[in-house]
Amino acid sequence: MTDNDAPSPDPLAPPVDLLAIAAHRDDVELLCGGTMARMAAQGYRTGILDLTAGERGTDGSAQLRGEESDAAAVILGVTARRNAGLPDAGLQNTPETRQLIAGFVRAFRPRVVIIPFMNGRHPDHRIASQLAYDACFLAGLAKLDAPGAPHRPEKILYALTYREDAIKPSFVVDITDFMETKMKAVHCYSSQFDGKTWGGEVFPGGDRPLYDQVRMHAARYGSLIRTEYGEPFHIAETMRVDDVLTLGVRSI
Amino acid sequence: MTDNDAPSPDPLAPPVDLLAIAAHRDDVELLCGGTMARMAAQGYRTGILDLTAGERGTDGSAQLRGEESDAAAVILGVTARRNAGLPDAGLQNTPETRQLIAGFVRAFRPRVVIIPFMNGRHPDHRIASQLAYDACFLAGLAKLDAPGAPHRPEKILYALTYREDAIKPSFVVDITDFMETKMKAVHCYSSQFDGKTWGGEVFPGGDRPLYDQVRMHAARYGSLIRTEYGEPFHIAETMRVDDVLTLGVRSI
Amino acid sequence: MTDNDAPSPDPLAPPVDLLAIAAHRDDVELLCGGTMARMAAQGYRTGILDLTAGERGTDGSAQLRGEESDAAAVILGVTARRNAGLPDAGLQNTPETRQLIAGFVRAFRPRVVIIPFMNGRHPDHRIASQLAYDACFLAGLAKLDAPGAPHRPEKILYALTYREDAIKPSFVVDITDFMETKMKAVHCYSSQFDGKTWGGEVFPGGDRPLYDQVRMHAARYGSLIRTEYGEPFHIAETMRVDDVLTLGVRSI
Amino acid sequence: MTDNDAPSPDPLAPPVDLLAIAAHRDDVELLCGGTMARMAAQGYRTGILDLTAGERGTDGSAQLRGEESDAAAVILGVTARRNAGLPDAGLQNTPETRQLIAGFVRAFRPRVVIIPFMNGRHPDHRIASQLAYDACFLAGLAKLDAPGAPHRPEKILYALTYREDAIKPSFVVDITDFMETKMKAVHCYSSQFDGKTWGGEVFPGGDRPLYDQVRMHAARYGSLIRTEYGEPFHIAETMRVDDVLTLGVRSI
Amino acid sequence: MTDNDAPSPDPLAPPVDLLAIAAHRDDVELLCGGTMARMAAQGYRTGILDLTAGERGTDGSAQLRGEESDAAAVILGVTARRNAGLPDAGLQNTPETRQLIAGFVRAFRPRVVIIPFMNGRHPDHRIASQLAYDACFLAGLAKLDAPGAPHRPEKILYALTYREDAIKPSFVVDITDFMETKMKAVHCYSSQFDGKTWGGEVFPGGDRPLYDQVRMHAARYGSLIRTEYGEPFHIAETMRVDDVLTLGVRSI
Amino acid sequence: MTDNDAPSPDPLAPPVDLLAIAAHRDDVELLCGGTMARMAAQGYRTGILDLTAGERGTDGSAQLRGEESDAAAVILGVTARRNAGLPDAGLQNTPETRQLIAGFVRAFRPRVVIIPFMNGRHPDHRIASQLAYDACFLAGLAKLDAPGAPHRPEKILYALTYREDAIKPSFVVDITDFMETKMKAVHCYSSQFDGKTWGGEVFPGGDRPLYDQVRMHAARYGSLIRTEYGEPFHIAETMRVDDVLTLGVRSI
Repeated sequence: MTDNDAPSPDPLAPPVDLLAIAAHRDDVELLCGGTMARMAAQGYRTGILDLTAGERGTDGSAQLRGEESDAAAVILGVTARRNAGLPDAGLQNTPETRQLIAGFVRAFRPRVVIIPFMNGRHPDHRIASQLAYDACFLAGLAKLDAPGAPHRPEKILYALTYREDAIKPSFVVDITDFMETKMKAVHCYSSQFDGKTWGGEVFPGGDRPLYDQVRMHAARYGSLIRTEYGEPFHIAETMRVDDVLTLGVRSI
Repeated sequence: MTDNDAPSPDPLAPPVDLLAIAAHRDDVELLCGGTMARMAAQGYRTGILDLTAGERGTDGSAQLRGEESDAAAVILGVTARRNAGLPDAGLQNTPETRQLIAGFVRAFRPRVVIIPFMNGRHPDHRIASQLAYDACFLAGLAKLDAPGAPHRPEKILYALTYREDAIKPSFVVDITDFMETKMKAVHCYSSQFDGKTWGGEVFPGGDRPLYDQVRMHAARYGSLIRTEYGEPFHIAETMRVDDVLTLGVRSI
Repeated sequence: MTDNDAPSPDPLAPPVDLLAIAAHRDDVELLCGGTMARMAAQGYRTGILDLTAGERGTDGSAQLRGEESDAAAVILGVTARRNAGLPDAGLQNTPETRQLIAGFVRAFRPRVVIIPFMNGRHPDHRIASQLAYDACFLAGLAKLDAPGAPHRPEKILYALTYREDAIKPSFVVDITDFMETKMKAVHCYSSQFDGKTWGGEVFPGGDRPLYDQVRMHAARYGSLIRTEYGEPFHIAETMRVDDVLTLGVRSI
Repeated sequence: MTDNDAPSPDPLAPPVDLLAIAAHRDDVELLCGGTMARMAAQGYRTGILDLTAGERGTDGSAQLRGEESDAAAVILGVTARRNAGLPDAGLQNTPETRQLIAGFVRAFRPRVVIIPFMNGRHPDHRIASQLAYDACFLAGLAKLDAPGAPHRPEKILYALTYREDAIKPSFVVDITDFMETKMKAVHCYSSQFDGKTWGGEVFPGGDRPLYDQVRMHAARYGSLIRTEYGEPFHIAETMRVDDVLTLGVRSI
Repeated sequence: MTDNDAPSPDPLAPPVDLLAIAAHRDDVELLCGGTMARMAAQGYRTGILDLTAGERGTDGSAQLRGEESDAAAVILGVTARRNAGLPDAGLQNTPETRQLIAGFVRAFRPRVVIIPFMNGRHPDHRIASQLAYDACFLAGLAKLDAPGAPHRPEKILYALTYREDAIKPSFVVDITDFMETKMKAVHCYSSQFDGKTWGGEVFPGGDRPLYDQVRMHAARYGSLIRTEYGEPFHIAETMRVDDVLTLGVRSI
Repeated sequence: MTDNDAPSPDPLAPPVDLLAIAAHRDDVELLCGGTMARMAAQGYRTGILDLTAGERGTDGSAQLRGEESDAAAVILGVTARRNAGLPDAGLQNTPETRQLIAGFVRAFRPRVVIIPFMNGRHPDHRIASQLAYDACFLAGLAKLDAPGAPHRPEKILYALTYREDAIKPSFVVDITDFMETKMKAVHCYSSQFDGKTWGGEVFPGGDRPLYDQVRMHAARYGSLIRTEYGEPFHIAETMRVDDVLTLGVRSI
């Protein structure tokens, strides 16, 4: 059972290795559910921080979506899932919200954080990206007015899934063995996706069901690294390689 | 029945509206088979010029591939398919080859020509792109030493299918209603594709059969214009629009 | 006569097909006056929403600029022009302003919205772009606290006119037949432009009068699509094409 | 009087400070005629090397175009204009042509060389760019089999005029005071341009005469540096600045 | 002695030619200390505006950092250094902060302003860039509610030093003769840098001391213009050139 | 002792894991000497193929440069170094040269091949890049007319060292522990580098000795991955990642 409730920072939140922060319940599943499942399976402690409770979504309710996200968290094997309780469709990046999220970051103490890409169809997604980044930075300042001991993650990964910008992923994570896990987690959100052809950042492909769109996109990202399914990420810094003989991914 | 034989320019080649030029038999089907089929269905005369006979392919033979391309041409509804007889895996862009291809262009007299993108995994694909472009330009010079009356196409479309460069398509053609036709044409090349997971510019997606890779890629291009299946193109010039209310493709 | 007055959303605002939103009176005329005139001439209902009244402009007054924009609206043939009454040179993108503009969007119910590009010399232009985008998205949420029935436009077009960024337009609209109409509308703002060599995002070309700069820029955009005059736009999504034989714009 | 004849390197060619190399007679005038005139007026010795005699142009003849280019050279004030006699519409970049052009470079001994951009509508333009670059490099090798003493120019400028690629000029030269000189030089080529709306890399702007297209483009490049007329250039290396207070070009 | 104290706009601030605005004391030294020193040596009046007092830095105190920045200002030869007193690690771009900074801009009356690049590791750096730009624009509005006479700088330079984005500098300033001055100014901040391998936007190079990292980066920027040391800048507009024979920077 | 002599493919050439191909003796050392040394130290078999003997270099002779490259090969620990004997300053990418180099590729049978970047100051570097790529592809064709059994490397790495293009490396290899080995190998070429400030693609940094320029560049690439020294590479395909917790390279 996951611990999916606290609308404010919980000083007892268990530390994790990898934290995913996104605006709405279901965003993490769509963007990087396979990567979260794979990292958990590889023995890492993982966490999710949803910034809003989704109370302004057209379908479902904050209550129902909370139950759905609880179920998805179990499937993804996350150690803890928290909700920051910020206003849905009304995210703002202010000193106050930065401080709030910095508190969560200090509680989770992640080494690596996954956040949404800088652009997005939904304004909340764009703002969530910047807010999460800023909070990760500020969490490391000893003199910040926020609960918890100073902690700054080492690395920020931007989830690129579904983006249509002409940007090449810095890397793709092979999620072939975790594709069905990802789909199971996405299916938890039946209030949002059943019978739909699109939602969130997932644009429609004619009448193709959203679940098939999700699978098709993962297949395409996988083909970039010559595997069945993948999830793409962007980083601002450069990739380090220690062995050029084990890079994989045929180029010719 | 198509007219798929002449290894040199045929002054009796029927004029077409749209001509696709590519290096190897099966390239046109993979890159833009849906678009060729759709344009034929919309009443345009279409043609294909294969630059080589594919005699150096590991599988099959030039003879067998010729029969396969004949069958595919019928399925795509092209008016005429020609073969320039240039050396497979040895394409060169020289005054002589430019003149040869310019002769074909003058015979076909197309208004629009589809050619491969400037980059490619196979050297022939890169060279075919430049050779075809140059020939289209030179075909218009009255003083060029080549058979036929001067003719320069108005427009060059670069087929982007399967390219992994970080380049946004100038546009995508909706091929939803012609996807099965495209797949039938691709299936004609059983000597090349049966039991394969990759080939040409199509990189593998793990163990996914090549035919499914082709379909998956078309689905992804389709999603860029919110339809089931599409084929992407690049143009060097700018798109013209006369009515901003009929653009389609939801952006928000 | 146009209806150019209301400083707050008017529930009786007539629905339009195409809405242009910009920061200052005269911005729409400079950015996309030709396109607005052409779409009206093609039978569409068009509207303009000016976010501020221009009370901080160095020349003229809010009152005078209101009369000028009334006159220009008539020339462009718009169905309705509204003013959101936000502070000139002080635009902000907040939950409150987003809600206000979302109300206007719900009243106008446009299918397509033209907004300024994301960058700009004037801070108001950059902020207007983001504010307008966000408001268009939020207007579609059933649970948004704003007057009017939920409505989300299908398409957002960014006006690129005068931008010096190295960005290729997604498309250019041919405004050759509406160039004089555009110039007449621009001339309405004599308090702003008479005797000037630059203004707004229009940088000077030595001593060339601003009116000639406007015409010169339109000529250059026109040359991108091989016509006399044009207006350029950017879209985040991909262009859809149904017929590659009627694209126009010679490439070779 | 200019010295415009030799179809092969002339060991007596006068050394120049600035050399412009292009494929066809009239290319230099269109691409950088204003800059050539301005540099001559500033006291520099300038030269032009036309790679071909234009014998395959649809209009005029090599003989007539030679006379036209003589006249234009006088107007631009160049010290010497040479013709390399390579085949029109058949330029190639081979060891032989590189050696030939390297000989010219050694004769002219320029410090700076202007060449066409790497892309172009006409294949000769693309090849001229690469051929000229390679020849400039090789001319500096002591052991190259070519007449003349080793000489390598310090700087290569790519002329960007008329290019539609999304590339920002590295810099623009203010040619306001030399615009009429440029136009006079362009008008010398009446066999090519009289009554035309397009030619070379200049695409048409509807029915606007080519001469006006040339002027309009120069006006637009000028506006990038806030002057009346300009010519744009690209360099591969970085600009050096010694005084940030004298950069000019208003940014805000 | 420099004048480094006022936490609010000082109407008596001496006018300068060049003003550098940055978030934290020591930012200007790291980003453009060599350029500031060189411009002062060339006879220009220079100024620095630090937006915050650095009270939230982990090391040192606002008081100590003030003394350090006083010392550095003397070394760089600036006419005046001011501090805007905005909250460290809490910068915001609001109408109020824009107005405050616009007041400083009006007091300094600079012709050219150097500001941080649009992206940054520290959120304050990103926000400082936008805030400074907006304030420079608004300072020119006659009707702005801020002390001082309207004044808008002509030019905005973005300091690119240490940025890892794939962006080519618009230009590099040769600071070879002022490298030791820059290092002396950086050494003033011993509370921040002594014994450190990284800080600010300077990422570590293994165990290499920060002071050596600073020098190494300057050497690399210098190599872009073929000199020993340099500082890189970005501008949104285009470079103007009046003499293509004196550009320097070997390209071949 | 290395085996550095054969001017034509040697069917007895030992197979290697990693092969570096470049135009001139000393190119491999400058571009990727650290990576070659590191991979050898990690137990891989490495090889070098120099395309030319450097007979047209201004300094030294082909004989002397052969001895220098022998010495460097020993230092880098390569299994075998070969010379293709193609003409210095006269490289061409033709069916004949592609076939020749394909023969070497078949003899070496590398899994990964390092080649120069697509652009370069020296024309040989640009051509070497394309020639090497094409040969690697063609070597895999069963029906190619070249000695040896078909073999296609899996991966092509483009060495980015010294490039000034605005391109972000796909990855950087940490060569900190092999920097002195790289410098020793570079020092072998005393006929080329002693007393020089620049050479090959290494542009000068004022009067800084070339050896220090090499070190400075490696330091800057190292800083991109937060280490002391590095070498940068570009790949056309996407990076695959299996564990996002072990990426290293601090981003915040």
